[in-house]
Amino acid sequence: MSTQHHDSPKSEVLTDVEIAQAHTLEPISTIAFKAGISEDALIPYGKYMAKVDPSLVQDDKQGKIILVTGVSPTPAGEGKSTTLIGLTDAFTNLGKDAIVALREPSLGPVMGLKGGAAGGGYSQVVPMENINLHFTGDFHAITSANNTLAAMIDNHIHQGNELNIDPRRITWQRCLDVNDRSLRNVVTGLGGPAHGVPTETGFTITAASEIMAILGLANDLDDLHERLAQITVGFTYDRKPVTAGELNAAGAMTALLKDALKPNLVQTMGGTPAFIHGGPFANIAHGCNTLIATKTAQKCADYVFTEAGFGADLGAEKFFDIKSHYGDLDVAGAVVVATIRSIKYNGGVDRSDLKSENLDALAKGIVNLERHVENLRKFGVRPVVALNLFTSDTDRERAWMAKWAKDFGVALEEAEVWAKGGKGAEKLAKTVLDNLVEGASSSLYNPEEGVEQSIETIAREVYRAADVQYSDAARKDLENLRASGADALPVCISKTQYSFSDDPSRLGAPEGHTLHVRQLIPRTGAGFVLALTGAVMTMPGLPKNPAANNIDVDSSGNIKGLF
Amino acid sequence: MSTQHHDSPKSEVLTDVEIAQAHTLEPISTIAFKAGISEDALIPYGKYMAKVDPSLVQDDKQGKIILVTGVSPTPAGEGKSTTLIGLTDAFTNLGKDAIVALREPSLGPVMGLKGGAAGGGYSQVVPMENINLHFTGDFHAITSANNTLAAMIDNHIHQGNELNIDPRRITWQRCLDVNDRSLRNVVTGLGGPAHGVPTETGFTITAASEIMAILGLANDLDDLHERLAQITVGFTYDRKPVTAGELNAAGAMTALLKDALKPNLVQTMGGTPAFIHGGPFANIAHGCNTLIATKTAQKCADYVFTEAGFGADLGAEKFFDIKSHYGDLDVAGAVVVATIRSIKYNGGVDRSDLKSENLDALAKGIVNLERHVENLRKFGVRPVVALNLFTSDTDRERAWMAKWAKDFGVALEEAEVWAKGGKGAEKLAKTVLDNLVEGASSSLYNPEEGVEQSIETIAREVYRAADVQYSDAARKDLENLRASGADALPVCISKTQYSFSDDPSRLGAPEGHTLHVRQLIPRTGAGFVLALTGAVMTMPGLPKNPAANNIDVDSSGNIKGLF
Repeated sequence: MSTQHHDSPKSEVLTDVEIAQAHTLEPISTIAFKAGISEDALIPYGKYMAKVDPSLVQDDKQGKIILVTGVSPTPAGEGKSTTLIGLTDAFTNLGKDAIVALREPSLGPVMGLKGGAAGGGYSQVVPMENINLHFTGDFHAITSANNTLAAMIDNHIHQGNELNIDPRRITWQRCLDVNDRSLRNVVTGLGGPAHGVPTETGFTITAASEIMAILGLANDLDDLHERLAQITVGFTYDRKPVTAGELNAAGAMTALLKDALKPNLVQTMGGTPAFIHGGPFANIAHGCNTLIATKTAQKCADYVFTEAGFGADLGAEKFFDIKSHYGDLDVAGAVVVATIRSIKYNGGVDRSDLKSENLDALAKGIVNLERHVENLRKFGVRPVVALNLFTSDTDRERAWMAKWAKDFGVALEEAEVWAKGGKGAEKLAKTVLDNLVEGASSSLYNPEEGVEQSIETIAREVYRAADVQYSDAARKDLENLRASGADALPVCISKTQYSFSDDPSRLGAPEGHTLHVRQLIPRTGAGFVLALTGAVMTMPGLPKNPAANNIDVDSSGNIKGLF
Repeated sequence: MSTQHHDSPKSEVLTDVEIAQAHTLEPISTIAFKAGISEDALIPYGKYMAKVDPSLVQDDKQGKIILVTGVSPTPAGEGKSTTLIGLTDAFTNLGKDAIVALREPSLGPVMGLKGGAAGGGYSQVVPMENINLHFTGDFHAITSANNTLAAMIDNHIHQGNELNIDPRRITWQRCLDVNDRSLRNVVTGLGGPAHGVPTETGFTITAASEIMAILGLANDLDDLHERLAQITVGFTYDRKPVTAGELNAAGAMTALLKDALKPNLVQTMGGTPAFIHGGPFANIAHGCNTLIATKTAQKCADYVFTEAGFGADLGAEKFFDIKSHYGDLDVAGAVVVATIRSIKYNGGVDRSDLKSENLDALAKGIVNLERHVENLRKFGVRPVVALNLFTSDTDRERAWMAKWAKDFGVALEEAEVWAKGGKGAEKLAKTVLDNLVEGASSSLYNPEEGVEQSIETIAREVYRAADVQYSDAARKDLENLRASGADALPVCISKTQYSFSDDPSRLGAPEGHTLHVRQLIPRTGAGFVLALTGAVMTMPGLPKNPAANNIDVDSSGNIKGLF
């Protein structure tokens, strides 16, 4: 999220899109060359974007993974992607062979709230307009595959329902990459016998489709195929799960997704290669770029900077426990992005007062950052705090932070990546280099011990809950998981990103609370059990004045008002 | 539609996808070079596909347009695209500078019934798997723009409804590129006040979106923008039309469509350049590739082969009266594709008996072809009949056809394009060359005289109806058209493709019938008035055994079972 330009240090504040449009890009073949990717492996999409065939990438540099995560998110925004991009460019500036691996933005929110997901200021990945609009079509491919499956389910029932699917128990929803609250709850199949079976259902945004999670965790095309076949689409009248494989849908879906599985190569404004690939949510899914992009990036560079969504309690935990689990990844370093504003917000300051100096609030809110740092150490990494500076930060606040870090015993460096790009993160880069540890990262729990034990461990170690309570429905779900053999899958906990607890109003670092598990859903395709601890919105709505109102194109095709 | 391989003359019958996969493609830069398109204007999508920026195409060869159309379609299929591709390759073989301009296939039917829309046998455009799946994402961009508009309409109402839109009179539907009958009639906005306003609505397939028609008729980006703004999305409580422009949606939609407006360049199996761009239906829209692709093709080659959907009564009429009207095109030649099977079918032979010799049926069914030839002459062209041969055609049937042509006074040549590619159409090519007439093509009516007069003219001159009857609703629509100023737009008649009349069972060449106009819909964005004369299905369903069941991908990414 590009959040820093409103009070950037520049006298004439340009928007992210203006900065990106003024930037001269290098041809994608030059970027590929820097990454050691031969022409053979490169599938260009225009002059500045390409897909890469991982099987044709010759190098294997076994790059070290540096995970960029953050404090609990606040409405002010922390600039996590922006920091990641600036930091990677700083590595490049230091003569290191570095690469970016990030998620793709979702089109729906681009049209909704002002803000994309390609960094900001002078720390962006470019061409930002393409990346934020259709890019190379991965999301569209997922939408197609998702809705082809939905059509095949309903058609199966319409044509005689050989599999005995209960139309009331279809769990597979359609999806669209648009913010459209009217699609959350719909009835389809109206109009009489020629037009299908009336069904209560809904649409999610494409990023929330299980197929997005599958694309994110598949090791290769065969693995993708197998996971797609294992998707549970609903249940029979006698409550047996029905899979996409039983509907003969996995082959067609794989055909629709085979190009989407190839990582997308672009560049940072510092000319560093960047893979931007996959975009699963960080609550109902694991929230990071594809495994295949991360692994390809490891072949192409010595240092791979990758991100986990939301705060470290959600994104980083899932990175270690789900993505690393399936990809057998070793994480060599972790960066926790924090801002003085976010710490004050966690200290109880109202959003409108965040620009005023407030050392007391810092002292009160710092517990949030401390907790995230402590938690990350449990995964075997040595986290570094990146303090992403804003112009409203005062010298005394900055000094307070420096002293805190020394006292707490964590490396902290300031970064000015929005305004300065890689030049604003060179000290941070050196500190990150000094804090890499190889071969030590680990997951927190062993999924084989069962979902209940996994949730218990995460709740205790990461959320610092005193206990876990299951609703009656969730208890029943647990039984079903055990009966179906899905009980040994990793757990993906869907929890508010604003608090360590499941109550979004409990800022700072709550402890001793109760984690309420409402529902457990086996995502048999993605390969995790989704544990819902609160209401989750999987289809956003547009605000009163959507960003789409201000987007326009001139006669030459230049996009205006994108951000 | 690839229809000929089931009884092709080859001893081992390969499928279209197998033939295409065995073919060695030339790099897209080579194809662009042949078309006089510089690297500057070329936006590659992989190694064998590209978008072309029309404003950067330097040549202006003012290519002659040759319109390929057909007899009334039959379930046996005529192979119109296949003939067009083979014919164009034949021109290339003769040393002529020729190019293809065709529509893009729709993904929904690819997953439904066996059959794509990229030609067949040795007369295909390639890479056929890409063209038939996501291609360069144009359909997805249309889906996005269409559904962004839908979300903005519903959001406007949800957020206070300043424009006073009547939710019961929203005419804008959502769309998806999937065959899904369950989406024809849906209720959205359920779930309470936070989730929108309950609305009865539906989805069309993407090809049926008005945006597809708009993309097909826009002359440039500004024209696209203007047309999008003029889309009527519904009506206020006091029955005033509401446009996309009033919702401030046109800019965002243009941003989503700006790349989709650029024509896609691929190649035929004969190595001839081919633009494949846009895919509007030929009943509820005008049924041909984009105007911008045709005009760009005219800059790139001396002979431009382009197609009109369905039979000449629907596709060709709309080509002359809508597409040529907006693009000021001159059509130099016309080819009517016919098969011995289709003529026998129009002579009353059952589909299962079409392979048996039947001279009586030929004599009876030939009136259909005669009528199409006569009609085409009214547009100022000198049509040539291409008899697309099948292995079941007998020598006596072929001789009968040759004699008929001589007697009737029309040039006829046989073509064997499925099995032989361009080599199978060289005589046809020479005959087409001999029958070009420049500067003589014209439209049939003057839209300024009003919709009623235009319909009257088409009904009399093309359909040979004795009269036109309007339903009460259509009479009311006529009044509204006159009041709103839309009465001077060209007319797009949606009629069954199987008959010259509005009754699909009346094969051959019916006359003296009544054309029933049920409804008139102003498509103020596309710029025509849609006249419905029967039930139109704008969202297909999947058959009992959808093609998707057989599609698969091997570990290397090769698609199997596509056709």
